[in-house]
Amino acid sequence: MLDTPRPRTRSGGRSARRAARSAPVFDMLPGLERNIPVCEVMDGSQVERIHNASMDILENVGVQFRDPIALEDWKRIGAKVVGELVYLDRALVMDLISTIPADFTYNARDPKKNVRLGGKHSIFVPMTGAPFLRDLDDVRRNPTLDDLAMFHKLAHMSPALHSSAHHIVEPYDHPISQRHLQITYSSMKYSDKTFMGMTTSPKNAEDVMDMCAILFGQDFIENNPVTTGNCNGNSPLVWDETMLGAMRAFCKRNQPVLCSPFVLGGANTPASVAASVAQLNAEALSALAYTQVIRRGAPAIYGHYLSTVSMKSGAPMAGTPEISLMNFMIGQMARFYDVPWRTSNTLGGAKTFDAQAGYESATTLSAVIHAGANYIWHSAGWNEAGMHCSVAKFIVDTEQCAMAYRMAQGPNWDDFDAALAAVPDVGPGGHYLGHQHTQDNFQTAFFMPELFDNNSIEQWVAEGSVEITERALNRARKLLQDYEEPKLDIAKDEELRDYIARREREIPASDELNQEY
Amino acid sequence: MLDTPRPRTRSGGRSARRAARSAPVFDMLPGLERNIPVCEVMDGSQVERIHNASMDILENVGVQFRDPIALEDWKRIGAKVVGELVYLDRALVMDLISTIPADFTYNARDPKKNVRLGGKHSIFVPMTGAPFLRDLDDVRRNPTLDDLAMFHKLAHMSPALHSSAHHIVEPYDHPISQRHLQITYSSMKYSDKTFMGMTTSPKNAEDVMDMCAILFGQDFIENNPVTTGNCNGNSPLVWDETMLGAMRAFCKRNQPVLCSPFVLGGANTPASVAASVAQLNAEALSALAYTQVIRRGAPAIYGHYLSTVSMKSGAPMAGTPEISLMNFMIGQMARFYDVPWRTSNTLGGAKTFDAQAGYESATTLSAVIHAGANYIWHSAGWNEAGMHCSVAKFIVDTEQCAMAYRMAQGPNWDDFDAALAAVPDVGPGGHYLGHQHTQDNFQTAFFMPELFDNNSIEQWVAEGSVEITERALNRARKLLQDYEEPKLDIAKDEELRDYIARREREIPASDELNQEY
Repeated sequence: MLDTPRPRTRSGGRSARRAARSAPVFDMLPGLERNIPVCEVMDGSQVERIHNASMDILENVGVQFRDPIALEDWKRIGAKVVGELVYLDRALVMDLISTIPADFTYNARDPKKNVRLGGKHSIFVPMTGAPFLRDLDDVRRNPTLDDLAMFHKLAHMSPALHSSAHHIVEPYDHPISQRHLQITYSSMKYSDKTFMGMTTSPKNAEDVMDMCAILFGQDFIENNPVTTGNCNGNSPLVWDETMLGAMRAFCKRNQPVLCSPFVLGGANTPASVAASVAQLNAEALSALAYTQVIRRGAPAIYGHYLSTVSMKSGAPMAGTPEISLMNFMIGQMARFYDVPWRTSNTLGGAKTFDAQAGYESATTLSAVIHAGANYIWHSAGWNEAGMHCSVAKFIVDTEQCAMAYRMAQGPNWDDFDAALAAVPDVGPGGHYLGHQHTQDNFQTAFFMPELFDNNSIEQWVAEGSVEITERALNRARKLLQDYEEPKLDIAKDEELRDYIARREREIPASDELNQEY
Repeated sequence: MLDTPRPRTRSGGRSARRAARSAPVFDMLPGLERNIPVCEVMDGSQVERIHNASMDILENVGVQFRDPIALEDWKRIGAKVVGELVYLDRALVMDLISTIPADFTYNARDPKKNVRLGGKHSIFVPMTGAPFLRDLDDVRRNPTLDDLAMFHKLAHMSPALHSSAHHIVEPYDHPISQRHLQITYSSMKYSDKTFMGMTTSPKNAEDVMDMCAILFGQDFIENNPVTTGNCNGNSPLVWDETMLGAMRAFCKRNQPVLCSPFVLGGANTPASVAASVAQLNAEALSALAYTQVIRRGAPAIYGHYLSTVSMKSGAPMAGTPEISLMNFMIGQMARFYDVPWRTSNTLGGAKTFDAQAGYESATTLSAVIHAGANYIWHSAGWNEAGMHCSVAKFIVDTEQCAMAYRMAQGPNWDDFDAALAAVPDVGPGGHYLGHQHTQDNFQTAFFMPELFDNNSIEQWVAEGSVEITERALNRARKLLQDYEEPKLDIAKDEELRDYIARREREIPASDELNQEY
């Protein structure tokens, strides 16, 4: 539970035990270990059809690597390269991806918050990249570094989030060219969970690597993943210089990248679910293969940003059946190749935190849980097709993730026999609320969402007719009051700040905006 | 699609074909035939554990049948009866339920709208029983017969709804004792889809049977299900006289009943997911067995209303992980016994159509789809724990059902090869929107939700910042303008009205309220 109700009394005995049990808990939930089946919508022959179609694309259509270093790398290992087009033989691709670890430990500043990723192991990561926020007053505006710190604090205090990510919102009060330094520092300072590293340019990615080496030690990061970088492909079938350069910075230091084709189904893929998956799969595999050209055995993650587009506006949609189906299918493909995979959660196009946002987010969350995604990104705050991060939605989404976490653990059987013993005690027509077993187990047996109001309408009106946005904002304010900064080693903190100061002197300040999904 | 955008021109050739394709379509989708796997969270031994626990309850704790006729029936076939407690031997239960059909055809007034129920075949049925509505102006008030007719019309025009149900809202302008007649007539008149029959008393149920005999013919209904009746159990382990009497009225005429324990997890079941399922399963089986005592071979449906209760208010909650898990488990049990099963969709406790309502509804919908439910009741309109039916939510829920329907059909493979052929045409860095295959297939390949707004915020603001509630109410008004009443045979209509007039003379008018979930 995110935060269970406080008991009425705090005196000794049973009520004291209940108090201990029901005090607000901000401890991170361990990385999720799934115990429910994945939803597999393809049989073996259909998986083979996708695989073969992707291999045909890689061999015959080719992938454009708009980057001289990558082209040289491909030539060096014997791939056919014509201009910027790389034609990848299926044997080569399968050989290369065979050395990607099926799972790995993703290390946090606090080692108790390390998480496993891959196979049955999944994590929830908040959204990133929003150029606007809806703030504590639900006002939509450009964010600042303080706003970013606020979201890092909220991520730190949300039990179901396993990461503070990176630029949850874009800090507009800091020059874009230097922003990655402040963003990385904010992730490191306000939370001791895992975090993401900026990939906005190869140089920026190198800075992140250097800062990680300060925080974790150079030797440690060479052998242990401590951050993740997202590299988007330009569908159809293009990887650009910025992304490939950032990829090299991460892979060389053994840090995992998310190889994420950016798919707007129907606009940059064929108008077909299965064919879209085949193209996306080819794209992801081409980048996954390249990670192993950079460094054999480096961890890497099968990624994607996935939407279908509105015929009316060309904008990305969310919560549609094809997106769910593609998630199920891509999950199967990632498992076929035995690599961890990333998807996007709680997506939506609503402009406010209205019912549309609720439907879209819950549908997406459900689909990615049933799909068996490992790296469940954009798990909190996303609204307006990623254009803003909403504080209210962030809070509700984290509780949704906590509920999905519980569901994905499957039913608890430990309590079965003891609970059954209550049935003859209570008997036909009785009630369980007064039974000792119920009193002892109610709180742990059933999740009580705090952000959902289940009072009668009379009670709800008496309390001011407060809808979910306001309830969530109240919760956010309370969390921020209770926030305690996780201690950062003073020497490391100084070294990080010295590094940032030096780099800020070296990098010319600019003021343009960039963005990443 | 519920209603795809109108084309710009209606002249001949391609645009004419597009016009034909994109005119508003109100045709009912055929009954859903699932083509994705069910989510099974128990292995075979865990299914056996639940089964054995339920059998132990039936044999040793017993079930209270508060009804002299049922007690006599049980004695007659050799069950052990002590007072009102019936102890059911597992061999007897398994023998009785063995004659329940695994699936059956549920007949509609328009035979083209007949649907199959059981196994892979599922239907969506709107909510019923709301004592309030939120109307076309989003005002919360008591409903009238006209309001009920409005919902029957909206159900008729919603492609993903396979039923007009019965008292979607309680018509307060008509005496309670006679209300079942008007409700049944409204279901029959304003829609030609399947409908439900009132079970508010044995006599009322008999009236429904008589009216069905008029509409479908006496001989026909003896051999063909034409309506369904819901019978709620009082958990733990009680069936009352009203429900059992109504059950007999239906079963004797070969009409299927939903045998639905009314479960508030933790209040009238043990504080344990698995033990709650074991008790619910025992309750459902005891009623399913009784249907076969009434009439061997009569169709019957494993049902339930299922929630967990809030510790704060004692009110039912929705969208919690345990409810999803229980749905998965109950689905497995129903399949273990090879009987069709009913669950509840789009439940929620929100007071308005806010984000809470969206999260709750979408989470529930997703769970029941993955659980493989056959009779997916309360699929549109439910809010405030069933206290009101919202017109806006009704409209959005039906689109959600249409999307879930599409998802449950699984990916389409027919278009795979043709779509793949577009990949080399477009090539790396190209785009698909101009490709002929995309233009020909976009609309059918990807679902375009009409009630979700995916415009930019600038466009959305320019159009008046309309949130989903208002968009849905506008849609409802448009649908009601376009409504065409499905012709009811004049002789049958007269006979129905004569029957109602006679019964209204015979039944004393009363004015109390009753309610059913």
